[in-house]
Amino acid sequence: VSSFFASRWVDAPGHVAELAPGLLPEGFRAAAAAAGIKPSGGLDVGLLVSSSPETVSAARFTRSGVQAAPVVVCRERCRLDGLRAVAVNSGNANAATGRPGLDAAARIQGAAAIAASTEPDRVAVASTGPIGRQLDGAAVSRALAVAAGELSEDGGERLAEAMRTTDAYAKRVSLEVELPDGPVRLCAQAKGAGMMAPAFATLLCFVETDAVLEPETADLLLGVTCARSFERISVDGQLSTNDTVLLFASGASAIRVEPESDAELRFGEALDALMRQLALLVVADGEGAKRVGRVVVRGGHADAVQRTTLAVANSPLVKAALHGGDPNWGRIAQAIGMALPGTAPLACDIAIGGIVVCRDGAAVRHDADALSRAVAGDEVEYLVELPGAGAAEAECFFSDLSHEYVTINAEYTT
Amino acid sequence: VSSFFASRWVDAPGHVAELAPGLLPEGFRAAAAAAGIKPSGGLDVGLLVSSSPETVSAARFTRSGVQAAPVVVCRERCRLDGLRAVAVNSGNANAATGRPGLDAAARIQGAAAIAASTEPDRVAVASTGPIGRQLDGAAVSRALAVAAGELSEDGGERLAEAMRTTDAYAKRVSLEVELPDGPVRLCAQAKGAGMMAPAFATLLCFVETDAVLEPETADLLLGVTCARSFERISVDGQLSTNDTVLLFASGASAIRVEPESDAELRFGEALDALMRQLALLVVADGEGAKRVGRVVVRGGHADAVQRTTLAVANSPLVKAALHGGDPNWGRIAQAIGMALPGTAPLACDIAIGGIVVCRDGAAVRHDADALSRAVAGDEVEYLVELPGAGAAEAECFFSDLSHEYVTINAEYTT
Repeated sequence: VSSFFASRWVDAPGHVAELAPGLLPEGFRAAAAAAGIKPSGGLDVGLLVSSSPETVSAARFTRSGVQAAPVVVCRERCRLDGLRAVAVNSGNANAATGRPGLDAAARIQGAAAIAASTEPDRVAVASTGPIGRQLDGAAVSRALAVAAGELSEDGGERLAEAMRTTDAYAKRVSLEVELPDGPVRLCAQAKGAGMMAPAFATLLCFVETDAVLEPETADLLLGVTCARSFERISVDGQLSTNDTVLLFASGASAIRVEPESDAELRFGEALDALMRQLALLVVADGEGAKRVGRVVVRGGHADAVQRTTLAVANSPLVKAALHGGDPNWGRIAQAIGMALPGTAPLACDIAIGGIVVCRDGAAVRHDADALSRAVAGDEVEYLVELPGAGAAEAECFFSDLSHEYVTINAEYTT
Repeated sequence: VSSFFASRWVDAPGHVAELAPGLLPEGFRAAAAAAGIKPSGGLDVGLLVSSSPETVSAARFTRSGVQAAPVVVCRERCRLDGLRAVAVNSGNANAATGRPGLDAAARIQGAAAIAASTEPDRVAVASTGPIGRQLDGAAVSRALAVAAGELSEDGGERLAEAMRTTDAYAKRVSLEVELPDGPVRLCAQAKGAGMMAPAFATLLCFVETDAVLEPETADLLLGVTCARSFERISVDGQLSTNDTVLLFASGASAIRVEPESDAELRFGEALDALMRQLALLVVADGEGAKRVGRVVVRGGHADAVQRTTLAVANSPLVKAALHGGDPNWGRIAQAIGMALPGTAPLACDIAIGGIVVCRDGAAVRHDADALSRAVAGDEVEYLVELPGAGAAEAECFFSDLSHEYVTINAEYTT
């Protein structure tokens, strides 16, 4: 019985089983410590290390024009296909911090390299928290030294805990994936609850496996699965300065995932399900979120489909209606029209939970009671079909807009 | 003493005086009635009529790809430079209503033409309210017949009342404008509190004057003043299906506003101040709004400036911080970066209420107490300066994101 693959929008592959939470793949160890960055005094520094010099990696970062210092350090001072460790802190984003921020990130990278017994260019750094405050690199470095003494092969839970900011719960999973040549482990830790928008790497997420992957395979698989997961979610349409997704493969299982093999297909299916479910956990934990919506837009050209999908997913009116369990499809029509100026009359179809409410741009009779039931559940599905000859399709998962979102973002600096 | 020109961002021209609210220019009469569309039974149908056959007009409409039936009727069946009347209803947008919706809008236009003793193509129609419900054109037509018997030269207040939906208060003003050849009147009624985004005509607004204007002058002045008012406001970044702005000039004062004359300059100044203050009233009445923000972006190219302005104005994180009186400028930096992907490192400057908090992309020391005071007022000003040789500039006025916005939009179908 799976407790992780909870969404109806994710199919748990039959060749995947859950392991004890926090258990890491062979070759990996993790630990966490408190550096005093979070006012609560909780865990705010994490360290993940692979003991294998052959570890390969792949990475994706935010596309924002304002990039946090740790993102700059990763991009400019790391071997992104050969990372062996990552040092992460919560409680401070180290963004818009100028030269002192870059110095702090480099200092943390150096301290983590010593803790991980590797070269600095094989250590990634990541931060999350408020923007525009100088990060105490010395305090983080001291915490990393403490963490280095506590590295454990079941340290995934504490690592995930140290990454949390406004997350209501830590997000991590440990899986065993049956490949033709035997089992490998696939694990991940993620954080994210606000400042989310569809884009490369819209949060912090670290994925580890003990399978043997070539760097090109790792990069391909991470790109494909990001495009179907973290690039398709929106909490508030806000792209972060710090988003980072890393995939590490230690190779410690000696089981190879060759390009275009059955093993690659099966490993890819498992990674895809893991990433989609993690992305849905991020949306479900969207600050104050009560329900998750999925909008699917079909027909027309790719650009129109993409713009329509985001317009629906990011509309505060649609999100507030989702929160209230209000089957207010007029707001879907409004968002579509806004996304596609100059196209009137627009003969679009709209269905909610399989119930058609609008056809060829006009209201149609429908079962109002069934519609009310369709929007009362935890997961609500919206389908938009655009007119025209195109066959493009896009989806986006999004959270609702709640009082708690306002409370979190108006009353606390996050 | 002016009670209308209340914002520090609007300069009340010295040659403008306020008249009794509801008073209309010479030649205009208005009335309102209840058609039973609003569940409250309140005023929901309004009629504005000019008695002069020489009346000229100008119009602007939403750019949405989903256009309400009344917008389609105005665009396809009206002489938009010679309108003499408008019939408006609240409580139903008559959008996404297909053929029956167009028939209802045409029926209302015909009934209003009889009530106004003019041709149907000289009567505009406008609607506001929920999308996707069939409008009872017969009920509106009966209410228009009642209103026709009550037309009054001080009917502007009741007209504005009949336009309200979630507006906390009716928005109307009556001004006397001193021109070189004598005084003319300039009056307006507007509605709008949600579903607002910078675009042509983001609400319903009717403007009347008894000055003599050529149609070309009316169109030019309406376009220029819309671009500085209703195109520069955002409540929730959502473009409506129904937005309509109409300017009527009856000519009844016999005082001419010739192109490129001193009269045109003075009339234009008055119209500009009126439109900007009305736009600010709409923002201040944004659903649940407590504070109004103004973001000004300077430098760089026009497209980058425009995208940055909207990204800041529409960010739910910036809006929630504005609501909470939180000087969280990191969210401004985040929004800028999102608007300008691929530009890192971005050496932008950010100031709030004149206090510089970020220079060349990095935090700078500032007076935290003064910053807290700057964000505690009713109107908060954000200045962003982008690097580069360009000299573009754009502004946007925006409301905050409050619990009341969520309540209004989650718990009621609007």
